[in-house]
Amino acid sequence: MSKKVRLGIVGIGNQGSNYARLIVEGRVPNIELVAIVDTDPVRRDFAVEQYPGVAVFEDYVALLDSGMVEAVVTTVPHYLHPQMGIQALERGIHVLVEKPAGVYTKQVRELNEFAASKPELTFAIMFNQRTNPLYRRLKEIVESGEIGAIRRTNWIITTWDRPQAYYDSSQWRATWGGEGGGVLVNQAPHQLDLWQWICGVPKSVYAKAGFGFRRDIAVEDEVTAVVDYGNGATGAFITATHDLVGTDRFEILGDAGKIVVENSKTATVTRLRRSEQEINASIPADDIWKMTSDQFDPDEYYTQETLEFDTAWGGQHAIVLENFAANILDGTPLIASGSDGILGVRLANAIHFSSWTGKEVPMDFDEDEFLALLNKKIAEEGKFPQRP
Amino acid sequence: MSKKVRLGIVGIGNQGSNYARLIVEGRVPNIELVAIVDTDPVRRDFAVEQYPGVAVFEDYVALLDSGMVEAVVTTVPHYLHPQMGIQALERGIHVLVEKPAGVYTKQVRELNEFAASKPELTFAIMFNQRTNPLYRRLKEIVESGEIGAIRRTNWIITTWDRPQAYYDSSQWRATWGGEGGGVLVNQAPHQLDLWQWICGVPKSVYAKAGFGFRRDIAVEDEVTAVVDYGNGATGAFITATHDLVGTDRFEILGDAGKIVVENSKTATVTRLRRSEQEINASIPADDIWKMTSDQFDPDEYYTQETLEFDTAWGGQHAIVLENFAANILDGTPLIASGSDGILGVRLANAIHFSSWTGKEVPMDFDEDEFLALLNKKIAEEGKFPQRP
Repeated sequence: MSKKVRLGIVGIGNQGSNYARLIVEGRVPNIELVAIVDTDPVRRDFAVEQYPGVAVFEDYVALLDSGMVEAVVTTVPHYLHPQMGIQALERGIHVLVEKPAGVYTKQVRELNEFAASKPELTFAIMFNQRTNPLYRRLKEIVESGEIGAIRRTNWIITTWDRPQAYYDSSQWRATWGGEGGGVLVNQAPHQLDLWQWICGVPKSVYAKAGFGFRRDIAVEDEVTAVVDYGNGATGAFITATHDLVGTDRFEILGDAGKIVVENSKTATVTRLRRSEQEINASIPADDIWKMTSDQFDPDEYYTQETLEFDTAWGGQHAIVLENFAANILDGTPLIASGSDGILGVRLANAIHFSSWTGKEVPMDFDEDEFLALLNKKIAEEGKFPQRP
Repeated sequence: MSKKVRLGIVGIGNQGSNYARLIVEGRVPNIELVAIVDTDPVRRDFAVEQYPGVAVFEDYVALLDSGMVEAVVTTVPHYLHPQMGIQALERGIHVLVEKPAGVYTKQVRELNEFAASKPELTFAIMFNQRTNPLYRRLKEIVESGEIGAIRRTNWIITTWDRPQAYYDSSQWRATWGGEGGGVLVNQAPHQLDLWQWICGVPKSVYAKAGFGFRRDIAVEDEVTAVVDYGNGATGAFITATHDLVGTDRFEILGDAGKIVVENSKTATVTRLRRSEQEINASIPADDIWKMTSDQFDPDEYYTQETLEFDTAWGGQHAIVLENFAANILDGTPLIASGSDGILGVRLANAIHFSSWTGKEVPMDFDEDEFLALLNKKIAEEGKFPQRP
């Protein structure tokens, strides 16, 4: 029998119990679930009943000090990931953090720096959408240069509809002090990661956010962000939790082609026969009427391919869990290094920062200034402590 | 034989000769083409040869003073529309201005104010896309309240690909001093008008524009604009002249439904069975998993209808010309009053203003401040005189 990683799950809420189920059902063959910790007695009772033979703790430090686990996954409110990650790594325990890696870059940077000082330990993040065959293929196409240098990106992702009951289901959800944001920190981190993973990291962002626009919450339920990649290329990101019909349309325009993805399922890939700049220079004045009257023959300029993928929900989490354990056991490359988690947090912070100040914000914004603004929101809300 | 309006065409370039052809081919039964004016001798020779029996002038004031025409259409560089419109109206001549009505709101406001002082004269604008059955139907649906109050709008319209040869085809094109802008004043005015005609006029705008990004021009060949309607609703408008593949996707999200238009041809109209806020309030906590796992039954919440339209290019200009003449002859209501032209100019100005200053700009921006910035661009370009 091959070796299994002895895992502890920190937080047995929706996501934690999902992972526990995947493991006990045998869908993550290289992981053994040995311990669970939760501060909520109701959830501990659930764990005791549901997972016989698994140790259940009230205090996560006690779990870390128990010697029972060699790795943990942190499925806790976002603010807690960095400190729990550091405390685990301090004890020589491998860490898989849930997304987002934290709420503000300062805390995530501390986690990353600490993890960098422990290169012998595995530090990963649950960017399960990076296992989605569609997005993997898109990344390949972009990285291979098939569509050329990126000139513009647009992602409208409003399929994150959430009813008020969802927001009312726990005290910390959709608060500044408990969750640290709305759609940007809870639903859209997948797209914030994929967007940057595939298209690159922007240099600055301007954003307009609706705070409690269509839901009774303090944080944002809608965002319109415009990014500048610093080389002339720009992009737009639009997300919302109040669109029952929901749009998921992702466009990447390159110098040599274009990708249009609908519903995270169908990708239309256009490959130009020559670069856009070459085609542009070659069209004679006499042919302009063809462009302006839609009479030109597309075949002359490009080919199109349609890629169809199944919706890839569910199995992805098991893949990331297995990959995390495989990295621990035999050094299999990680799907997503934990240190990548800061990218999405930074973009979400920059979007908040811009929407609060009404100004364009560079991606290397002042982290302390951001935290001061966040703490002001937390103080105004008056429900949770400010953050260090 | 019924009466015909005696029309003069001011400027016999591409658009002017298109209108002349429509008239002489009998596609505008209530207009008689009696005179043409152009400053370019080559175009005048063309007119003499092409339209026998039609008087050809070199100077447009001479045409206005000739007593031959009772109405004119101005198909000249955008800057000239206001002054030519005023000079015609001064002489009791009805005016149809080509879009855009002008380059900056100050000059268009002067035209509008003068036209308002001559209510007995017809003052119209060539917003031919307002005759497009698709957009007319959308406006009906929105105005009837079928999709409720508008909460967000997105229009990606990058089907305006123009090669360098197009820009090089005349001296004034794509210059600050000659044309006054790029895609916003030349290609996208149709969408800027339709967007506001259907969805309402925003209160402020933030925009990022690419000036000579992918074409060798001084003005903008790409724009990303974010608008705020002042009531929480926001919108995005993205356009470019360097996307050979081209996207035309227009979304309107309302409180009671949604419209998604693809390629100005296919509109998917979703009508919610109850308002989004009622549905939101009615979804119990136990059903949240249905939302988060895409297991809910859409039929429970809404119906969808797909409307297909033919591409409506070509005939529209004849319809607007005929409507203009009908208004003169018997008071038939105008498709687009000339005074509406200021809306698109104002939005284009606000987008330029924001992209130059990097700041969000209110729609009631300072017109003199805008003109000063525009004149600075004209001075830097050094090809054309500054504007008063």
